[in-house]
Amino acid sequence: MERTVFSFDQAVNLLQTKKYATLRSLLSDAEPADIAEFFEQITRNQYAIVFRILPKELAAEVFVELDSELQQILIESFSDIELKEVLEELYMDDTVDLIEEMPANVVKRILANSTGEDRKTINELLKYPDDSAGGIMTTEFVRFKQNMTVEEAFEMLRRDAIDKETIYTCYVTDVNSHLIGIVTVLSLLLASKDALIGDIMEENAVCVYTLDDKEFVAAQIGKYDVLALPVVDAEHRLVGIVTVDDAIDVMHEETEEDFAKMNAMLPTEKPYLKTSSFELWKSRIPWLLLLMVSATFTGMIISSFEEALATQVILTAFIPMLMDTGGNSGGQASVTIIRALSMGEVRFGDLLRIVWKETAVALMCGLTLAAVCFAKLFVVDKWLMGTEITMPIALVICLTLCITVFCAKLIGCTLPLLAKKIGFDPAVMASPFITTIVDAVSLLVYFQLAKLLLKL
Amino acid sequence: MERTVFSFDQAVNLLQTKKYATLRSLLSDAEPADIAEFFEQITRNQYAIVFRILPKELAAEVFVELDSELQQILIESFSDIELKEVLEELYMDDTVDLIEEMPANVVKRILANSTGEDRKTINELLKYPDDSAGGIMTTEFVRFKQNMTVEEAFEMLRRDAIDKETIYTCYVTDVNSHLIGIVTVLSLLLASKDALIGDIMEENAVCVYTLDDKEFVAAQIGKYDVLALPVVDAEHRLVGIVTVDDAIDVMHEETEEDFAKMNAMLPTEKPYLKTSSFELWKSRIPWLLLLMVSATFTGMIISSFEEALATQVILTAFIPMLMDTGGNSGGQASVTIIRALSMGEVRFGDLLRIVWKETAVALMCGLTLAAVCFAKLFVVDKWLMGTEITMPIALVICLTLCITVFCAKLIGCTLPLLAKKIGFDPAVMASPFITTIVDAVSLLVYFQLAKLLLKL
Repeated sequence: MERTVFSFDQAVNLLQTKKYATLRSLLSDAEPADIAEFFEQITRNQYAIVFRILPKELAAEVFVELDSELQQILIESFSDIELKEVLEELYMDDTVDLIEEMPANVVKRILANSTGEDRKTINELLKYPDDSAGGIMTTEFVRFKQNMTVEEAFEMLRRDAIDKETIYTCYVTDVNSHLIGIVTVLSLLLASKDALIGDIMEENAVCVYTLDDKEFVAAQIGKYDVLALPVVDAEHRLVGIVTVDDAIDVMHEETEEDFAKMNAMLPTEKPYLKTSSFELWKSRIPWLLLLMVSATFTGMIISSFEEALATQVILTAFIPMLMDTGGNSGGQASVTIIRALSMGEVRFGDLLRIVWKETAVALMCGLTLAAVCFAKLFVVDKWLMGTEITMPIALVICLTLCITVFCAKLIGCTLPLLAKKIGFDPAVMASPFITTIVDAVSLLVYFQLAKLLLKL
Repeated sequence: MERTVFSFDQAVNLLQTKKYATLRSLLSDAEPADIAEFFEQITRNQYAIVFRILPKELAAEVFVELDSELQQILIESFSDIELKEVLEELYMDDTVDLIEEMPANVVKRILANSTGEDRKTINELLKYPDDSAGGIMTTEFVRFKQNMTVEEAFEMLRRDAIDKETIYTCYVTDVNSHLIGIVTVLSLLLASKDALIGDIMEENAVCVYTLDDKEFVAAQIGKYDVLALPVVDAEHRLVGIVTVDDAIDVMHEETEEDFAKMNAMLPTEKPYLKTSSFELWKSRIPWLLLLMVSATFTGMIISSFEEALATQVILTAFIPMLMDTGGNSGGQASVTIIRALSMGEVRFGDLLRIVWKETAVALMCGLTLAAVCFAKLFVVDKWLMGTEITMPIALVICLTLCITVFCAKLIGCTLPLLAKKIGFDPAVMASPFITTIVDAVSLLVYFQLAKLLLKL
């Protein structure tokens, strides 16, 4: 038993020397995720060879782990019989994911090679929005009736287990397919053979609705520490389940999306090294352009103060410090609230409590920064570097700092809440956007205070 | 079956009117995570009442979900017998978590009320670093011998299941406790009663080492889609397991930590509304101070250019735009690389590929931004607003933009890689830090170009 279960170098070597039997036995013991990584080390014309070497069931498991580009290349190399075999092994949610990624001609072939029943299920599942519980659920779960005995349940499990995405949580439905309870394999093991499913099932199971957001579904799985959640339709009929491994994928995706949005990028799904420079440019340029153009306002503010600034050029030297400190303060508040919103810790109704808390934090941060800045102005700037700092100038700078931090924190904490309220993604209200607004605020405060205190 | 399994209002009402029997039956059907949320709605003197109402096993499950402040209040209200009962129901990893959160006197009581064997295990587990596989693993797993039959295995499961954190994956060890394979309940169900565990076990199971980083462990669970991973020591002896629900908690924690660090904050563990203003101040002020003081450099750059700037005050108006665009460009690159590092998509060895890719993106972004900026300068600033934009000034601004974006992307992509290389957390190399460096770079470029092209 090793960390990486097989050596890629050894496998490549076996492949090149055409020792297929040895390669097969090497790969047979490996994890699907590792074999999928191995596919990234080999050349396009070797894909089909390696894939055909794999035992059928393992091949399908590897197929699911491959990225869509590779999946398409493989499908195009498949005969209809091979395609059918792979499709048979896939779970419904994976088939649907595949169909959503493939071009029309490949989708056509996939549907043509599915059984009539599967085609019906696929079409049902494709109707749900991508980002809903229905869009990520699978239909391969174990369904019990209330009047079955534990022994009958075990028989059913032994018969059907191989085709189910999970058997560890089973679902009990009535004649109209309404979800009435869940039974875990643990409870089956602990019950007597003659016990009735209806008597050992847990009735108040948590479930989600087909149209619930997939992020909410993932969060529920995390909250309740369950291995799967049942998905019901508006009439409370059980239509599918979402398993914990899919929930983890959703969490990953959503986190990466948030990281991108909060840093002025459009989300991309591909790993970095596989994303072309053009795709990276496409994901980055829109926000850069928007934020650059909106900086016109800060330019206007400085322009309108141009003459006064010419008489006190020293004021210019502190513009970057004031803008950055404002931006950082606002960014801290906004990110804190964006995350709290996304974890369900705060709601719009908490606005007043949040503003109150941020006000206190802003005052403490503002005063600390102003005090340190004051000391720095006289010790470092004036004494060490000989800059002409007068008391009025120091006052203008430190007061601006205080007020900017205060405004930045308030803007930072309210904008994400407002965005959420009007149905936007709060994540775009992070640092880059807040910075642009806070820049303008800090400059306005700075120049007004300078006018007032320096009598410009 | 409902979304929120019970109404908090109804429960509070039952509590206030002392209808404890009804409250008990209401809570008995509820999920532990929901009851833990309910505890946040009631007052301190009601904690012990509600806790004593709960059936013992449920009470322990709720206890694990409570935050440490509440846990401490409850423990202090417990008699030794009550404490013992709760401790008996806890899994080892939860007990260790509890001990790590509690003050010394409470820890003493917990250890005094644990059995001798548990105390030994606790002390073993406490030796592992907090953030290692050993620090998050539990010791309650099912252990089979190779020569057991499937029937014997089932008997063992039925007998021991209730005390194990998971039974769905069981572990096979030799006489020296070395991990030699894993057996899932699914494979047990599909095997014949007389089959030997040694024959049906999967031998090449993925495992992690006690000192592996917990983030790595969580990522492995996500990668291999498993419900638990075995943890082995340096001699490959099986010492514990990490289950998928704990992996999800680790993922959450790590994500929140990264969001904090990447936005100039020290991570805090408490939910926002429960964090005091003073704690928020403590997590935010260090980076604000550091970044403010490092802005001294930008001030020095501007100061040294003061005289020239006085003759061309218009240049000042574009400082915010240049700084922000540089900061945003650098932030995009750094966050992309920080995430790719954390997902294991790139390593330090990819430095050249990354720099090459970012160079291409930087050139495309820089040229696009410069072109749009050029048009904007003449259409908006000059024509619409009457600012005195001359061709040389426009050239200085647009060239600076291009070069700044270029430098920002290069700094943004290399710093996280270097940080990782020398053992720092790449996450601190995000926007706020990059912005401070890029500010200085953009000003230097701006003023040098101005000197050159405007002959100042």
